[in-house]
Amino acid sequence: MKRIAIVMGSDSDWKVMKPAAELLKEFEEESHNQVVSAHRTPMDLGTFVTWAEANGIKVIVAAAGGAAHLPGMLAAYTTLPVIGVPVNVTSLNGLDSLLSIVQMPKGIPVATVAIDGALNAALLALRILATSDAGLTEKLTRHRETMMRESREKTKNLT
Amino acid sequence: MKRIAIVMGSDSDWKVMKPAAELLKEFEEESHNQVVSAHRTPMDLGTFVTWAEANGIKVIVAAAGGAAHLPGMLAAYTTLPVIGVPVNVTSLNGLDSLLSIVQMPKGIPVATVAIDGALNAALLALRILATSDAGLTEKLTRHRETMMRESREKTKNLT
Amino acid sequence: MKRIAIVMGSDSDWKVMKPAAELLKEFEEESHNQVVSAHRTPMDLGTFVTWAEANGIKVIVAAAGGAAHLPGMLAAYTTLPVIGVPVNVTSLNGLDSLLSIVQMPKGIPVATVAIDGALNAALLALRILATSDAGLTEKLTRHRETMMRESREKTKNLT
Amino acid sequence: MKRIAIVMGSDSDWKVMKPAAELLKEFEEESHNQVVSAHRTPMDLGTFVTWAEANGIKVIVAAAGGAAHLPGMLAAYTTLPVIGVPVNVTSLNGLDSLLSIVQMPKGIPVATVAIDGALNAALLALRILATSDAGLTEKLTRHRETMMRESREKTKNLT
Amino acid sequence: MKRIAIVMGSDSDWKVMKPAAELLKEFEEESHNQVVSAHRTPMDLGTFVTWAEANGIKVIVAAAGGAAHLPGMLAAYTTLPVIGVPVNVTSLNGLDSLLSIVQMPKGIPVATVAIDGALNAALLALRILATSDAGLTEKLTRHRETMMRESREKTKNLT
Amino acid sequence: MKRIAIVMGSDSDWKVMKPAAELLKEFEEESHNQVVSAHRTPMDLGTFVTWAEANGIKVIVAAAGGAAHLPGMLAAYTTLPVIGVPVNVTSLNGLDSLLSIVQMPKGIPVATVAIDGALNAALLALRILATSDAGLTEKLTRHRETMMRESREKTKNLT
Amino acid sequence: MKRIAIVMGSDSDWKVMKPAAELLKEFEEESHNQVVSAHRTPMDLGTFVTWAEANGIKVIVAAAGGAAHLPGMLAAYTTLPVIGVPVNVTSLNGLDSLLSIVQMPKGIPVATVAIDGALNAALLALRILATSDAGLTEKLTRHRETMMRESREKTKNLT
Amino acid sequence: MKRIAIVMGSDSDWKVMKPAAELLKEFEEESHNQVVSAHRTPMDLGTFVTWAEANGIKVIVAAAGGAAHLPGMLAAYTTLPVIGVPVNVTSLNGLDSLLSIVQMPKGIPVATVAIDGALNAALLALRILATSDAGLTEKLTRHRETMMRESREKTKNLT
Repeated sequence: MKRIAIVMGSDSDWKVMKPAAELLKEFEEESHNQVVSAHRTPMDLGTFVTWAEANGIKVIVAAAGGAAHLPGMLAAYTTLPVIGVPVNVTSLNGLDSLLSIVQMPKGIPVATVAIDGALNAALLALRILATSDAGLTEKLTRHRETMMRESREKTKNLT
Repeated sequence: MKRIAIVMGSDSDWKVMKPAAELLKEFEEESHNQVVSAHRTPMDLGTFVTWAEANGIKVIVAAAGGAAHLPGMLAAYTTLPVIGVPVNVTSLNGLDSLLSIVQMPKGIPVATVAIDGALNAALLALRILATSDAGLTEKLTRHRETMMRESREKTKNLT
Repeated sequence: MKRIAIVMGSDSDWKVMKPAAELLKEFEEESHNQVVSAHRTPMDLGTFVTWAEANGIKVIVAAAGGAAHLPGMLAAYTTLPVIGVPVNVTSLNGLDSLLSIVQMPKGIPVATVAIDGALNAALLALRILATSDAGLTEKLTRHRETMMRESREKTKNLT
Repeated sequence: MKRIAIVMGSDSDWKVMKPAAELLKEFEEESHNQVVSAHRTPMDLGTFVTWAEANGIKVIVAAAGGAAHLPGMLAAYTTLPVIGVPVNVTSLNGLDSLLSIVQMPKGIPVATVAIDGALNAALLALRILATSDAGLTEKLTRHRETMMRESREKTKNLT
Repeated sequence: MKRIAIVMGSDSDWKVMKPAAELLKEFEEESHNQVVSAHRTPMDLGTFVTWAEANGIKVIVAAAGGAAHLPGMLAAYTTLPVIGVPVNVTSLNGLDSLLSIVQMPKGIPVATVAIDGALNAALLALRILATSDAGLTEKLTRHRETMMRESREKTKNLT
Repeated sequence: MKRIAIVMGSDSDWKVMKPAAELLKEFEEESHNQVVSAHRTPMDLGTFVTWAEANGIKVIVAAAGGAAHLPGMLAAYTTLPVIGVPVNVTSLNGLDSLLSIVQMPKGIPVATVAIDGALNAALLALRILATSDAGLTEKLTRHRETMMRESREKTKNLT
Repeated sequence: MKRIAIVMGSDSDWKVMKPAAELLKEFEEESHNQVVSAHRTPMDLGTFVTWAEANGIKVIVAAAGGAAHLPGMLAAYTTLPVIGVPVNVTSLNGLDSLLSIVQMPKGIPVATVAIDGALNAALLALRILATSDAGLTEKLTRHRETMMRESREKTKNLT
Repeated sequence: MKRIAIVMGSDSDWKVMKPAAELLKEFEEESHNQVVSAHRTPMDLGTFVTWAEANGIKVIVAAAGGAAHLPGMLAAYTTLPVIGVPVNVTSLNGLDSLLSIVQMPKGIPVATVAIDGALNAALLALRILATSDAGLTEKLTRHRETMMRESREKTKNLT
């Protein structure tokens, strides 16, 4: 059963989000991936959330660009944690999507990551699941150790 | 019958929007005023739009601050023109609400006015109604002439 | 008779605005398209507005970049609704044109859309006309339904 | 046993974070509150994380202002989910702390909320715990229903 | 005969511009001061310029806030040098007026000074007149020497 | 005798400033062009100004990028009008040079034009000279009329 | 003999810089404090540097606001390390002074600290002197230990 | 013995920092170059500092992009002067790294240079060493004289 859903406003966001889906596979947490547009299909927001809650989804990753309303609106419909990924699609370099996602008013939180920060969204989703999954914590620890080792190797490239 | 609705995310926005409602009264276009929160009552967005379309509302003015999703979400539910008023409520001086409202993706337009620009939102709503209401065009013309006259009087205050 | 005028400060803006004119044709609302420069031909602003009001124009779409004065100045000469399209032509990514258009002072509103948001300007013009044109409302509704359908199809591209 | 830790770079951040601690108490999730400065006590970062992981902390909320390194550095030491709260303490209105927290490089995620968004940080922590705590999900649902009801009551204040 | 005109969009800008008029008096270059609103009285722009050119005005200082179109529009009507003063009147701290004034497209220059930089606008107007007025150059030189002397005295205040 | 000097911090700015020099030639106002670096040759600032004042230079155009100090420092050494051209050379799109030039403190004005606004700097220099040169005013008027005519022709390109 | 000079563009910057001078006294490194305005007394820049180099000054701390040229210009005249303190004096919250100081072109470095960061400028000057002064290193180490201890005490204030 | 260390968060920063290492070689001050990631190897921060202090390093140059914590965290562990180089690696053009590095809170200074300002970081490191190394001061003086001479030659390229 899939525990993480990745939704995005348009299939053009997939090139940004695909690495997140692939990282999740490496952790054996294949994601449910779907296009849901807050603006083109507003009535699908509630439907998606109902489906997600009923089907074992524990964390929603939502990506959107420009006036990015998808993460905040999904967070408004559910009590699941929603991770927002601001996508850089306009001339404003993603600052518009960042502020549209992170500056949520009191009451409805969105866990925002960096502009185009798909990989960190995936890792954050895993950290959340790991709060009740010791096996996953161990995998994350090993992943961090690998990063550490690889980082330490990199000094030799400074030539 | 009311033709203009003013909706806002919170009653704390009323101090910004009240002058708009008062200006509309001067034009004998009393507005329907309502709190609808995109984030706290997402399922009311569609309900409000259905009510508005069925009750003769022709233009919706929507005000919101921070990650301001109300105008864009209402515009997603209706084909009525939606005027967005970015409200300055966070430490970012309204830049967050401005970008959250104006940078709408292709397909769903929001007619954005200045930060805290409630009066211009009201005047824009009137200009829209006036496209099919010659009497209103005349009132707007007189209003503009009054502004003109008052502006010309102001040089005498430069002392 | 044409009901929508698209004016722009320079013919170099046409590559941004042409899709708007083409969308309007799809809606059988061919636009009047004209170059009017607020800075190079300031005395043409009033002339254009007089012509537009006398010839059935109901909505003006005005596009300009940099210190973009065209939409605001046209709005100053008319009581027709003016839609402003900030064009991204300088190194500042369109932020200069956005602020020059949206931050209009009290009394003269401009309905601002996203940077380079030509398509939404066209759709907003149509929404405005539709306030007194039920046939156009129906077309807009069908257009929205098409967008909806197409959006829902896109999940299958996430591979 | 406490499951949520609130850490901040200075006791001057407490006036921003106290409402978060109080909200958590209402949910019967009293937080562990502590000052840990990334810059003044860098060697305490690892110590704190070791303590937190050994003592049942499941989510860390970290608040900091200016060049805000605390949330990112804690996230670097642990695999627990870390929620970052940018605090507005410099002349730059919190934009510096927001970017210092949200723009984390690949590998180490921080779940960023709005500038001074302490309440949403608390709610996000609760949503995370609720992924494995049905009782908490129910409390969050009731909390959301209360917000909804209160929001709907507010139209009557528009006078 | 007055050689410098100070125009502003509203009499509320006078509190910013009055020190400029007073400095000019100290230089025995009393200014013509007038309210001309680009937005409320667009047809007065050309009239003012015609009057100014016919009455010996050599430099125009124009102050405006928000979407500040006055300096650029005056520059479009005349070949006199126009000095633009961005006035800080909105929540955006004058950044909107600065960009609306300084980012003029090719062909129509505006000599922009700092936000609320009325005194420098006056000094720039004097420098321009001084290009053909040796007596004024001498006064400006003495003014600079006074500033120099006063600046050198200030170290003694560092206690 | 040359009346306008164009100075720049580096010969790499010449690609931006050359069109200004060429426009001035069209007006038969050939410019003196020189590299003077505020940072690499600070002691040349005073020398250049002394030379310029003694050799009939009436207006200085100064171009610089990044932390652009050249225009302001030249203005500090002279009472001639100094026109500043912010050059876009860093990753910040010219915003750094714009603010470094336009935000001059009280006492020393710089007439700032748009980022990379070399042509307008030249036109502004001509407008300044024209305040005491009727022949130049006439040339500027004809130049403006040409622009006007060309602008009016451009509508035919909208196809 | 004084080893650190604190210079500022105006005595109004003293309220920001005084705490730096006081901190230096605590370290028994009394500073030479002086007003030197890059814009009002440009010819004093070289004079000051010559004096400083001849009188044992090892580090220059320079504070300025707006289009802040003082630190960069001093750095251009000397090979001593220059520390720049951007002062928040305009409506732009110090962003203008920060960019005017930090974005120095290749060849002339300025060691920039935070907006209004006088205390850190003093500490940086001490760290620089300490590179050849073991006694000072020890004092800095004790100072850091005090900060550490005080920071650790602060958790008890979270009530 | 090496006196300057250049550390960076990732080997991808080397293309930005290599010119700094090369410039130092020209000054016969070969640098110690190393990858140390604040986020991937947080426990290496203290280790590196201990090694550096014990091995004669006098100045640390630290480069990082995005939410750039490396310079500030190193400065927190040592009393050596730390020079921070903001690297432009995200869509925000280096503004995020600049603010993450320069806006350090009271107590821990970082000497920040321009975005991607590697050469100036090297020169600043040399200026710092030169405070106790007359030979190096002389080399820096000659370097500055070469820049001066080369800058003066550049006018001949303006053709």
